[in-house]
Amino acid sequence: MSRSTEPARPGLPPLDPRIAARIADRSADHIAELAVLCRLPSISAEGRALRETAEAVADLMRRWGIPGTIVETEDAPAVLARMTGRSPVVLLAYNHYDVQPPDPLEEWTSPPFEPTLRDGRLYARGVADDKGDLLARLAAIEAILHVRGELPIGVVLLVEGQEEIDGPAIQRWIRENPELLACDLAFVEAADLDAGGRPGLILGTRGMCYVELEAHGPPSDLHSSLAAAVENPAWTLVRALATIVDPESGAIRIPGFHDRVRPLTERDRALIAALPDPTASWQQELGIVPPADPAARRRLLEEIVGAPTATICGISGGYAGPGLKTVIPAVARAKIDFRLVPDQDPAEIVELLRAHLDAEGFPEVRIIVHTQDGLPARTPSDDPWVERVAALTEAWYGAPPAIWPNSPGGIVMEPFIRGLGVPTMFGGVRPAGGRYHAPDEFLVVDSFAPAARFFAWLLERLGDDPPVARRG
Amino acid sequence: MSRSTEPARPGLPPLDPRIAARIADRSADHIAELAVLCRLPSISAEGRALRETAEAVADLMRRWGIPGTIVETEDAPAVLARMTGRSPVVLLAYNHYDVQPPDPLEEWTSPPFEPTLRDGRLYARGVADDKGDLLARLAAIEAILHVRGELPIGVVLLVEGQEEIDGPAIQRWIRENPELLACDLAFVEAADLDAGGRPGLILGTRGMCYVELEAHGPPSDLHSSLAAAVENPAWTLVRALATIVDPESGAIRIPGFHDRVRPLTERDRALIAALPDPTASWQQELGIVPPADPAARRRLLEEIVGAPTATICGISGGYAGPGLKTVIPAVARAKIDFRLVPDQDPAEIVELLRAHLDAEGFPEVRIIVHTQDGLPARTPSDDPWVERVAALTEAWYGAPPAIWPNSPGGIVMEPFIRGLGVPTMFGGVRPAGGRYHAPDEFLVVDSFAPAARFFAWLLERLGDDPPVARRG
Repeated sequence: MSRSTEPARPGLPPLDPRIAARIADRSADHIAELAVLCRLPSISAEGRALRETAEAVADLMRRWGIPGTIVETEDAPAVLARMTGRSPVVLLAYNHYDVQPPDPLEEWTSPPFEPTLRDGRLYARGVADDKGDLLARLAAIEAILHVRGELPIGVVLLVEGQEEIDGPAIQRWIRENPELLACDLAFVEAADLDAGGRPGLILGTRGMCYVELEAHGPPSDLHSSLAAAVENPAWTLVRALATIVDPESGAIRIPGFHDRVRPLTERDRALIAALPDPTASWQQELGIVPPADPAARRRLLEEIVGAPTATICGISGGYAGPGLKTVIPAVARAKIDFRLVPDQDPAEIVELLRAHLDAEGFPEVRIIVHTQDGLPARTPSDDPWVERVAALTEAWYGAPPAIWPNSPGGIVMEPFIRGLGVPTMFGGVRPAGGRYHAPDEFLVVDSFAPAARFFAWLLERLGDDPPVARRG
Repeated sequence: MSRSTEPARPGLPPLDPRIAARIADRSADHIAELAVLCRLPSISAEGRALRETAEAVADLMRRWGIPGTIVETEDAPAVLARMTGRSPVVLLAYNHYDVQPPDPLEEWTSPPFEPTLRDGRLYARGVADDKGDLLARLAAIEAILHVRGELPIGVVLLVEGQEEIDGPAIQRWIRENPELLACDLAFVEAADLDAGGRPGLILGTRGMCYVELEAHGPPSDLHSSLAAAVENPAWTLVRALATIVDPESGAIRIPGFHDRVRPLTERDRALIAALPDPTASWQQELGIVPPADPAARRRLLEEIVGAPTATICGISGGYAGPGLKTVIPAVARAKIDFRLVPDQDPAEIVELLRAHLDAEGFPEVRIIVHTQDGLPARTPSDDPWVERVAALTEAWYGAPPAIWPNSPGGIVMEPFIRGLGVPTMFGGVRPAGGRYHAPDEFLVVDSFAPAARFFAWLLERLGDDPPVARRG
């Protein structure tokens, strides 16, 4: 394990070696506490173990000297801790304790809620996204408090339990409690080091609406000899779904869908062009083969950053067991996520989808809205706090961060960017991990302490000569 | 319970009252034995409990004086019994001991393999299709043997275990063992009395091929933020499926699909026109509403009898749990049955489907063939044995049978019609029941003894003055 406390590019003070030592000394304890949290199946999609996990997080904070308290949102409890520092600068760090469902279960090498160490990796659902990240931050703060008894800057920690389902309540809660959350800048989760060891910084989020299309047929599954007489909801659903995308290109053809898409700026494109090629690791990490042509890969990356998508996440209906069964299904369903970009409005997209299905002759296909609260938002890349964080990150890691103008995924950034009005980054660097949302999610154990050390150093340096006066 | 032993239209001898009394005396035992058989989950699609059930059937036969023996096919054991009679006429009766899978399990009022009596109905998977039917025949034969010590005509009983999946082995076995099965006519399962008490007689079968279309995407489910970069197999499947049917009418548009469809003859149409309207009970029995216009209902019936269909029996892929999960599925699948009519060839239909998908740009969509062995076939409605059976049925029930030139469903008739070359009918009358292949399948207990009595009487009368000399 690296014992570095120095920025890779000299010129700034090192991390206090006592803080680094404290993090190192407690390493086994950190991983043990992480494993304890990962045993809790805090699956927000199923409403499981959420209060238990929130209380475990608050309890852990208090044991580490951090004044964590439960705050109630309309959905699930969150954990809030507010600490002052020597500097008036305040950083808000947002993480989440909920996790994605673990299925397909049979593809896990070890059970998802039985954290298992293999070859230096800890495997569990949520170990990387986002419990490991959270614990690295808590470990940094614990070490600073242990050594110094106070923090260099003010810190607000907000840890919530509906992130994986874009729960709307935390977003309302943020908007309704600006005084509890007053800050100069916000970090949401934390970015990964890429395969080349280069840190990331993400400035915006895609939004999302997630709907289920449901077609109904006979009141129960019927013998398929009646197929000529009964509308088959699986065929209805297939025909309705087929109208959503262009049969050739797969482009989304819901009228009005693209109207509010804010094109990438020239600066956004330049930042994207400067990114290390993220597709390089796809074949090894994901088993998918990117285009061979570099220009095609760059265009693909611009799409991933800046274009909306429609994904059938699940489709079901009728008999799915082994062998064959000759039935007309009673119902057929498709779960679809629409990932949106600034300035699309998820609720409006649902309305456009309804209008489209009606116009295409499918008024009987129901739309069940799982969420339409994932709002897209973007922090300008020329914000002074963005530049400060980028400079500190570069100083520590010796490489400029890979700045993504917008995340390919959805992040709870909009309430901070538009609700609190502060520059917000998917920033700081999390422990290395992977297979988020997929079987065999993992965290590289030896990356935990370096991530904690960097966060501790960042806290110390963010109070130096603040680039802008406190807002609001 | 009716104690009738007389034909409803006099002129023919009644059923020997001792035989009727024997059937009545053993009624409780018959239902108890039926319940024992229905406890065996003989699901051919899952290969469950097949040998155990075959042996239970053979054992029951022997306990009832019928020389049942196991015969091995390449798939599953069958049960064969061959008995001579006073008359040289030989009737082959074919039934099956296998059943459809019971799901959706949550829609059963009582568990499918725990036979349960409610309001005079016995509920269990297979109780009507086809174990009740089989037991009514065995009960009739047992009663005749008990009273007389011999049968009036020769009887061959063949009970197999792959009917619900159109297992090909029994069809080969029938073709390869004509000497064991030599007969003058064949009954396959048995027809229902309709809601008005009118018996049925079915002269032909639809065929079937059952395929699974499978589209593959990433090696495991991936985070949907990569949707722009990864081919989603659910979209691929939807777009491929959508090419199979006309978007407006739902008509099958695979080139060549309809080429071999033998149109219904004028006589077939007349028979269909004379059928009591089967759609009358749909709303109550199936919860589906037939067209209001009688001419439209008649056209629908001609379609059900004479036109091929394509049914999505099941579709699956990705996340189907509660709430939402944002993944690109690794694989998406659709199970499809094509119900075919004479003289379509199921193997050829699979080839046409492959060619169609290739031509439409989906060479990567795999076709897994579950069966292409369900061959359509039809016995001419002017066959003398058809006329004899129809006349006897009419004499007993006092109403002409509803003669269906072709079944809406698939029946193992082709090996008898084309393999053995004998007139074959879905004939005789089974106990009343319903919800075949669906949850809450049932048999009306009080209809069991009347069905057994009719079969006993039919055996007695089929040897009178045979309409044609023994074939072959």
